[in-house]
Amino acid sequence: MSNSNHTQAAQDRYFMMLAIEQAKQGLYTTRPNPAVGCVIVQAGMVVGQGFHPKAGQPHAEVFALKDAGAQAVGATAYVTLEPCSHTGRTPPCALGLIEAGVQRVVIAGLDPNPQVAGRGVQLLEQAGIDVTVGVLTEQAEALNRGFLKAMRTQMPYVRLKIATSLDGRTAMATGESKWITSVAAREDVQKLRALSGAIITGSETIVTDDPQLNVRSTQLGVPAEQVPTPKVVVLDRRQRLAHNAQSEYQLCRRADTLYWRKDDLAELLRHLVSEHQCYDVLVEAGASVAGSFLCQQLVDELIVYQAPCLLGAAAQPMVNFHPLSLSEQLRFKVSSHEQLGPDLKLTLYPL
Amino acid sequence: MSNSNHTQAAQDRYFMMLAIEQAKQGLYTTRPNPAVGCVIVQAGMVVGQGFHPKAGQPHAEVFALKDAGAQAVGATAYVTLEPCSHTGRTPPCALGLIEAGVQRVVIAGLDPNPQVAGRGVQLLEQAGIDVTVGVLTEQAEALNRGFLKAMRTQMPYVRLKIATSLDGRTAMATGESKWITSVAAREDVQKLRALSGAIITGSETIVTDDPQLNVRSTQLGVPAEQVPTPKVVVLDRRQRLAHNAQSEYQLCRRADTLYWRKDDLAELLRHLVSEHQCYDVLVEAGASVAGSFLCQQLVDELIVYQAPCLLGAAAQPMVNFHPLSLSEQLRFKVSSHEQLGPDLKLTLYPL
Repeated sequence: MSNSNHTQAAQDRYFMMLAIEQAKQGLYTTRPNPAVGCVIVQAGMVVGQGFHPKAGQPHAEVFALKDAGAQAVGATAYVTLEPCSHTGRTPPCALGLIEAGVQRVVIAGLDPNPQVAGRGVQLLEQAGIDVTVGVLTEQAEALNRGFLKAMRTQMPYVRLKIATSLDGRTAMATGESKWITSVAAREDVQKLRALSGAIITGSETIVTDDPQLNVRSTQLGVPAEQVPTPKVVVLDRRQRLAHNAQSEYQLCRRADTLYWRKDDLAELLRHLVSEHQCYDVLVEAGASVAGSFLCQQLVDELIVYQAPCLLGAAAQPMVNFHPLSLSEQLRFKVSSHEQLGPDLKLTLYPL
Repeated sequence: MSNSNHTQAAQDRYFMMLAIEQAKQGLYTTRPNPAVGCVIVQAGMVVGQGFHPKAGQPHAEVFALKDAGAQAVGATAYVTLEPCSHTGRTPPCALGLIEAGVQRVVIAGLDPNPQVAGRGVQLLEQAGIDVTVGVLTEQAEALNRGFLKAMRTQMPYVRLKIATSLDGRTAMATGESKWITSVAAREDVQKLRALSGAIITGSETIVTDDPQLNVRSTQLGVPAEQVPTPKVVVLDRRQRLAHNAQSEYQLCRRADTLYWRKDDLAELLRHLVSEHQCYDVLVEAGASVAGSFLCQQLVDELIVYQAPCLLGAAAQPMVNFHPLSLSEQLRFKVSSHEQLGPDLKLTLYPL
C-alpha cells in the first residue's frame, strides 16, 4: 500500500468515526428508522455534519449538506449507511449528494433494505462520484442491529435481559426481588428499552411485579418523551389478562398492549417485524419465558446484570430449563463485562 | 511540597515498584515466610537487587547488598517489608544494611511479626540512617496477605474459590461437573493453590471428585516442585475418611492429610496458624462447606470462576444456605473482573 493510500485509509476511519458519533445522537429516537450520521470533509476539515433525528424528519445527509453549504462542492461525504435511492417521506439522499457537488462518498456499509440495497451506490457512481464502501462497517452496524437483521431476515434482533445474583437467582423463594441490582444497573436497562421497538414480557411478570416497562430515564442524552414508546407484548397463552381500563395492572390499562396467546414465539417475532416494524425486541420476563426463548434459539444477545450477592439455594432460578447432562448446557461467548455501580453487566452471545 | 520533595516521592514510588517486582519472584516459594524484595539505588541508578527465595535461605536485603557490593555505601535501600531485627536462621537484616554503609532506607510497610514490629526501623535510626516508611504500602501488603493477617490476628487469610456457571450452578443434578470452566480458569486455580499454606476441602468432595488438590502447573514462573506443598485439610465431622495407604481416594493415601472432625471452623483456622504456620488458606469444597465458611464470616476473599453457560434450574447450587428474605442475603464488593479464556474471574470481598 502506498503511503498516500495509507494516510487516506486512516483519515477515512477517523472521519467515519465522527460520522458514527453523529449517528449515535439519534440512537434512541429514529425507530423504526436506522440511526445514521454524516460528516462532510473539505481539504481535511469537517465542514458539515448531521444525523437522522426521527422518522419523518430529513436524513443525516440533508442536515450535513445544509451545514456545509457551498463547501460541499468537491468535498468527501462520510455516511454510516448507504444513502437512500428511493423517494419515501423525503427525497433520495443519493440525489442530494450529487446535486450538492460532492466528489467522493465513503460509506460504512450497504443498506440491506430492499428499497436501497446497492442502488444508492449505483446512483452515485453513475453520476461520476468516487464511492468507497466498507469503512468501520462493524462499528456502524452495531448501531442498527435490529434494522439490519430485520431487513436481511425478516426477524428482529432479540435481546434477553436478566437481573440476577452471583448465585444465579432472581428473587427469593417468597418472590421478594426489589431490588437485587443497583440504581446504576436499572438505569442501564432504560437504555435497552429505549433501543427497543417492542418489549416482551410474561403474564406471570405482570401479575407478580405489575411493571411499567416504560422509558423514563433522564440519562439517555435525549428527553425520554422523544423516545418512541416501545410496544409492550404480553405472552398470555392461558388468557389470564386482557385490556381493561380498570385493570389492577398498569400495562393492561394500556389499550396498545399486544396479548400473544399462541405457543409459537418465532411467529410472534416475525409478526412484530412485519406488522409493527419492531426490529429490536427486548425480552424482560421471568425464568420460564427466558428459558423458552433461549432453548428455541431466538436470542441474539443475553444481557446479565449481576449483583455481587448470594441469595441462597432456595431462591428462584434465573432460567427455567432442564438439561439432563453437561452436553445439553447452553453456551455463550462473553462479548463484554463492565462494572455498573456495585454490579457487573455481562453481554453475551449464544454459541 | 517543594519540587525536590516531589521528585523524591515519585522516585521512591518507582524504586519501590521495582522492589515489589523483585518480591513477586518469591511469591510461590517463600512460605511460611513472606515474599520480600529489595533494590539498592546509588545516585538514581539501581546498583543491586534481590528477593527472598525460600524459608531458610537469606533474606532479600542480603542478596541485594551482595549484588551492590561497594556501591551500597551511601546508597538508598528500598525494601518491601521492614528489615528484620532478630537473629533467626539468618542474621538480622537491619544490621546488614548498617554495616554495608547504606545512608537511607525506604520501607513499604512495618513487619507486624512480634519479633520485628518496629524494632528494625529503630535499629536503623539509632545507627543514624534516614528511614522512610509507607511507600506503596498497599501494593506491597497485597503480596503477603496471609502472613500479615496471621501476625496481626493469629487467623489466616481465607480465600474461597468456586467454579460456577452463569446461572450459579457447579454441577448437574447427577453430579456431572467435569468440566464447567476452561483450562485457562483451572490453570489460574493452580496459582491460588501455590499461594496457599493449606487447602481445605470436604469429605463429600473427596468421595465425589477424588481430587489431588496439588500444584502441578508449569505456568507459575517457577518449577512446581519448588512450591511448598499445601497441607490438605479434610472436613470430616462424620468420620467417613482416614489415612489408609490402600484408600480408593488419593488424598487419604497421603499420610500428612489433616482430618478435622470438629464443628468449629474458626478453631481449625486458628489451629492452622498456630500449629502449622499456614497463613494463606484456600477453601476448595462443595456448596455446604462454602455456605458454612461464608455464613460464619470466615472468608476474606471470594474468587468465582464463571463459565458463560447455563446449566438449568435443577443443577446444583453454588452455595448452600437458606436466607429467608433479601435482607439476609450475603453481599460482596467486586474487587476485579477479568476474562480467562472464555470464562470470567471475579474477585470479591465480603461486605
